[in-house]
Amino acid sequence: MLECGALVAPLDIAYCAYGTLSPQRDNVILVCHALTGDQFVAETHPVTGKPGWWERLVGPGRAIDTERYYVLCVNVLGGCMGSSGPRTLRENGEPWGTDFPPVTIKDMVRAQARLLDHLGIARLFAAIGGSMGGMQVLQWVASFPERVTAAMPIATAPFHSAQNIAFNEVSRQAICGDPDWHGGRYWEHGTVPAMGLAVARMMAHITYLSEEALNQKFGRRTRRDPAPAQGGRAPACSFFGEIFEVESYLRHQGSSFVRRFDANAYLTISRALDWFDLSADYDGDLSAPFRDCETRFCIISFTSDWLFPTSQSRLLARALNRAGVNVSFVEIESDRGHDAFLLDEPDLERTMRGFIAGVSEHAGASATLRPGLSHAP
Amino acid sequence: MLECGALVAPLDIAYCAYGTLSPQRDNVILVCHALTGDQFVAETHPVTGKPGWWERLVGPGRAIDTERYYVLCVNVLGGCMGSSGPRTLRENGEPWGTDFPPVTIKDMVRAQARLLDHLGIARLFAAIGGSMGGMQVLQWVASFPERVTAAMPIATAPFHSAQNIAFNEVSRQAICGDPDWHGGRYWEHGTVPAMGLAVARMMAHITYLSEEALNQKFGRRTRRDPAPAQGGRAPACSFFGEIFEVESYLRHQGSSFVRRFDANAYLTISRALDWFDLSADYDGDLSAPFRDCETRFCIISFTSDWLFPTSQSRLLARALNRAGVNVSFVEIESDRGHDAFLLDEPDLERTMRGFIAGVSEHAGASATLRPGLSHAP
Repeated sequence: MLECGALVAPLDIAYCAYGTLSPQRDNVILVCHALTGDQFVAETHPVTGKPGWWERLVGPGRAIDTERYYVLCVNVLGGCMGSSGPRTLRENGEPWGTDFPPVTIKDMVRAQARLLDHLGIARLFAAIGGSMGGMQVLQWVASFPERVTAAMPIATAPFHSAQNIAFNEVSRQAICGDPDWHGGRYWEHGTVPAMGLAVARMMAHITYLSEEALNQKFGRRTRRDPAPAQGGRAPACSFFGEIFEVESYLRHQGSSFVRRFDANAYLTISRALDWFDLSADYDGDLSAPFRDCETRFCIISFTSDWLFPTSQSRLLARALNRAGVNVSFVEIESDRGHDAFLLDEPDLERTMRGFIAGVSEHAGASATLRPGLSHAP
Repeated sequence: MLECGALVAPLDIAYCAYGTLSPQRDNVILVCHALTGDQFVAETHPVTGKPGWWERLVGPGRAIDTERYYVLCVNVLGGCMGSSGPRTLRENGEPWGTDFPPVTIKDMVRAQARLLDHLGIARLFAAIGGSMGGMQVLQWVASFPERVTAAMPIATAPFHSAQNIAFNEVSRQAICGDPDWHGGRYWEHGTVPAMGLAVARMMAHITYLSEEALNQKFGRRTRRDPAPAQGGRAPACSFFGEIFEVESYLRHQGSSFVRRFDANAYLTISRALDWFDLSADYDGDLSAPFRDCETRFCIISFTSDWLFPTSQSRLLARALNRAGVNVSFVEIESDRGHDAFLLDEPDLERTMRGFIAGVSEHAGASATLRPGLSHAP
């Protein structure tokens, strides 16, 4: 049963697992993915053939060490890589499409909790994720505080801001304004709203990078237009036969995204993001969901992230402090914007290693004091 | 003859004028408009019925005082409010459409200079403008230093950054990806690429506002969806029957823009913006265009403007300083983002009044020393 009251049955939950579950089932790290991420965190992506999106941090000997921990990554509810979502076929043989009920971050987390129940895992050693993945981490602790020993929300926020919502709304208008969307029933027409989805991705991609990163990476460099002026398209495609490199890059980002992502899933997940507001159930009190919570937190933000700026993480850290939660907050100096959490950032890796080691020692010491944790309701 | 070598003939230049030209023709202030602005700076807009976009600052007794100055505002070349542009009919009775040649900020300024020649105005007392208007102001001094006594570039930059270009490119993709664009020949089909243009405007509008302004104005407030879920459109339109106020606002911005602006003009002007780089003709030396220039400058930026951030104005001020130009630089504290230059900002008005008064006194004192300035080449 979802927050909206609708039922998705049967419920498919697709996930990847790495490492070995300990006999005590106490070594589980849940990695939560972002808006356009998926469960292929540490293995080659089946569609793109690219390496897993966090292979840098998840694997044998890595910060999230699969030789020590059993690592799970779950495709979010509403997504398009195997978990129930708009592309899933219903019993009548048709995809759900836009009839797929609206989902929330809370719904995503509850679906993951059901998977853990199914696997007989009572408690997570840690929940870790960036961006929307960080929202899931926060929601995990808010919904199931007794099931999470350590939480690491990265480059995220306790709610989606007006600017975040505004950008998402432009994405949705681009997708739904594409006539190939066909009111969401594009499979009936053998189309996908490729242009709208590409525009949505291009715009979102700008918000993932800092101005500085764009300047360094592309500046005002130009190249010959690979698709030179044809008929009347000149002013759109090129200028004096040249295009800027940043344009070429964005076009590539847009078109390659369309090949791997479902438009209706994008709509569904972007709505879940917009609707996220941890304090909404508590009259705006952001400390309330974390009172009496024993989860240890490590919050990470990046200086040049303007999509989920440090101020949002600071707000969260203060609320956790007020709730008496054990929290550390690390702002990492980086000029790569929001995407920094996916990139080679040594400080991120160091912080993650240190936090996991610290919690592990503490948990080992206190394990004998608090045995026999049972399943959460 | 344009920079690209093409010829636009006949050349239409539409403008509005306010106040009285002095017998010496030495009281002219040129106001330059932004990307989606036009010449209706201080009078009711003929299409929207709204007040002029700078009535706050231009008029009798205002900072740009039409009782004292003869104020001109010219629709930019490539625009859609009367000056030659993609919507202008050619001799064959068809609009130029995307055959309209690419124009640059330099071309816009040269067209304005031809208008001044036509009106017998040798010299501007001042050139003033914000955003793309500020680029024209800078280009005016670079192209015709002996024709501009005072220059006030506001909320602008000496070049379009990679991030600026990136956002513009998404706009262009949205417009050209709209099937109603029809390769730019939409008039043949009785359509306009309304959805693409609206998406472009919505996205651009976010970049005109600060995160703070959006938070203050809308926050996460919701309202009932005025266009409730029909058939399959639910996930795109609303969530639990509600939409966020910021979404409703953006949709309105998008749809009202489509009624007053031409898509091909938007493409043409956005390209001119991207191509703008004052130092490009001087091997990247931003001081070079201003050497030996006697124009007095007042540069204005706004603290929360992230589209044309203060750092860009500072770069410009430093370059002018290096060139030995008389320049003052005022960063105005405002939380309204780029749009601040169009809004009620008392510090902007005060600075403008002070600068104009100062230059006026100085010009009066030196008028007898440097009489008889002739037309520039």
